[in-house]
Amino acid sequence: MPETSGPAERPRGLPAGQRGDWLTGPVLVVGAGLLGTSVGLACRRSGLEVLLSDVSSEHVRTASGMGAGRPLEPGDRPELVVVAVPPDHVGEAVRVALAAHPGAVVTDVGSVKTGPWQSVREQAGAASYVGGHPMAGSERSGPLAASASLFDGRPWAITPHPESDPAAVEVVEDLVRLCGAVPVWLTPQEHDRAVARTSHVPHLLSVLAAARLAAGPENHLALSGQGVRDVTRVAAGDPRLYSQIVGANADAVLDLLGEVREQLDAVIAAVGAGDRSALEDVLASGVAGTRVIPAKHGGPARPMRSVWVSVPDHPGELARLLADAVASEVNVEDIRIDHDPGRPVGLVELVVEDTRADHLLGSLESRGWETHR
Amino acid sequence: MPETSGPAERPRGLPAGQRGDWLTGPVLVVGAGLLGTSVGLACRRSGLEVLLSDVSSEHVRTASGMGAGRPLEPGDRPELVVVAVPPDHVGEAVRVALAAHPGAVVTDVGSVKTGPWQSVREQAGAASYVGGHPMAGSERSGPLAASASLFDGRPWAITPHPESDPAAVEVVEDLVRLCGAVPVWLTPQEHDRAVARTSHVPHLLSVLAAARLAAGPENHLALSGQGVRDVTRVAAGDPRLYSQIVGANADAVLDLLGEVREQLDAVIAAVGAGDRSALEDVLASGVAGTRVIPAKHGGPARPMRSVWVSVPDHPGELARLLADAVASEVNVEDIRIDHDPGRPVGLVELVVEDTRADHLLGSLESRGWETHR
Repeated sequence: MPETSGPAERPRGLPAGQRGDWLTGPVLVVGAGLLGTSVGLACRRSGLEVLLSDVSSEHVRTASGMGAGRPLEPGDRPELVVVAVPPDHVGEAVRVALAAHPGAVVTDVGSVKTGPWQSVREQAGAASYVGGHPMAGSERSGPLAASASLFDGRPWAITPHPESDPAAVEVVEDLVRLCGAVPVWLTPQEHDRAVARTSHVPHLLSVLAAARLAAGPENHLALSGQGVRDVTRVAAGDPRLYSQIVGANADAVLDLLGEVREQLDAVIAAVGAGDRSALEDVLASGVAGTRVIPAKHGGPARPMRSVWVSVPDHPGELARLLADAVASEVNVEDIRIDHDPGRPVGLVELVVEDTRADHLLGSLESRGWETHR
Repeated sequence: MPETSGPAERPRGLPAGQRGDWLTGPVLVVGAGLLGTSVGLACRRSGLEVLLSDVSSEHVRTASGMGAGRPLEPGDRPELVVVAVPPDHVGEAVRVALAAHPGAVVTDVGSVKTGPWQSVREQAGAASYVGGHPMAGSERSGPLAASASLFDGRPWAITPHPESDPAAVEVVEDLVRLCGAVPVWLTPQEHDRAVARTSHVPHLLSVLAAARLAAGPENHLALSGQGVRDVTRVAAGDPRLYSQIVGANADAVLDLLGEVREQLDAVIAAVGAGDRSALEDVLASGVAGTRVIPAKHGGPARPMRSVWVSVPDHPGELARLLADAVASEVNVEDIRIDHDPGRPVGLVELVVEDTRADHLLGSLESRGWETHR
């Protein structure tokens, strides 16, 4: 099947957080967990009527108690159905929604997009289905973790298939914008290859690094620095959820894992043979990869620099440092706190625009901070 | 050769940042780069005489101009030589130091420890050599990036070999403590296996994830979230430096890469066969690994929880949030700022003790912050 890239390029002028004319409600949310309830709250915030359904009646009670909508009743006629169920059940839930609500637009918020599309494409009404995937989540799950602003500023993939009704696409885009998210247009296949690359395979490699730690003696692990903490952070994610996500995107994941295996073999061969130049080539390919990740706010990458400051580890010191950075009129783009064993002092890394780093260093030093030039 | 774990257990009562009676100087620093110059500055801060040498006379001029010591002169008789040269040259520089300064204690700050030891063990005076490795660094290099407090609170491996003179070990421990670092006692072989596990292999897996990104179309990369940024951050490190480090620790790295390859094959087989249970087992082994990384300050892991807050992305807001957290009497253990494309609002994750999270949420909400429960 051809990959139409047309919709992916379609620009829209509507600012984030505002809704267009297409979506007027009611919106039915199927699955009142973290994502579904958050969608409900965002729709209610915009004044839309929201209907809720879930296999767990307790979830529906909780979500409606939070103001995310009211329980679905027989005779309700939603304009849009948002399927927000676990990955393994998305395809079926979309099919059920198309059959139960003829004429309604159906979208979903699942992590993979080709499978659900293939499971509905032969069905009557398939033109009313437009896949979606918000890049948002939380370490917590369930309706109590939901928030109307969960999607604020996050990318939200919209994945029309070749037969998607253009009017249905408009409705879904309205939903994305009223949730405060930023639409990213991709075909279902493109989407799945994209998340294999930017999410599923990095997750699996994080797991491979983390899995080595469990066998490490305690005094060896004492040498853990910020690097290994960063590399392994996502590996703490729920195995059941991630096995569904990765399992549902097998083809795209396997393609990339084949590349990983090939490059891993190259690393093993290079280290085994003491071939520094081959090893450097692999390491350089990693450096190149880190440079293509889009900058904050999606703009062109501005050169950033890290400023290191020693900060006593008790309440108030970090706030005082940030306040002094503000007084220095430098915007802190990112912060990392170094975790150090055994000593009540922390090393804080402030990431700022390169052109402002020297000014910040001088200013913080004049305010008595110990910086690391 | 047996791995004596004796020295690794040796407790010492001297608080960090104070120096004992063993180290009286002068201290000769060989290699006036980031680490060497920082050692010099820390020793000078404690009133020790510091001598500097480097193949680059400009580095020596810069470092001495920064107050890290004075250039080495003929006839100088150091008590301690600190070798701080690139990984490939550590062994040779240690041998040269032992021959040039008989009676002096010699240590180094290199990233691997077995190789240097093996290269000096047959040499006269080898008992005066005690390896070391501070877990400190910076994205910058050279003497200008140095700081007396670079090692504050950082782990610093001390790696005596079986023939190391106990008095030499005392001198090196004094150095570590006056630099403000926390000694971690390991044999050279233990050290190398430890850093393979906690640093070198995580680095290589980060590179394998990052290397996949370079081939990704721009609209695919638009789906990059905080996860892939974390996993790939260290992959931006200098390929020449890391090929030296990894190359010098080939045996320990290869052992673990063999395990990685085996588990990668298991992942590929499980995904290919749709074997969710096998995939879940691998993912669970990653979760277990993330749980053994020591807590901040090396104490037992306290349960932490993340509190998410929406923060407008302009100067002052982050500082105001931190100040409000302080006013709530909750200590923020870690911060992460989510990078979101396209929207002037950031999602800030505050990591706090689990028992304080609900209090912080309520307190921040009462101060007008939008939290994500």
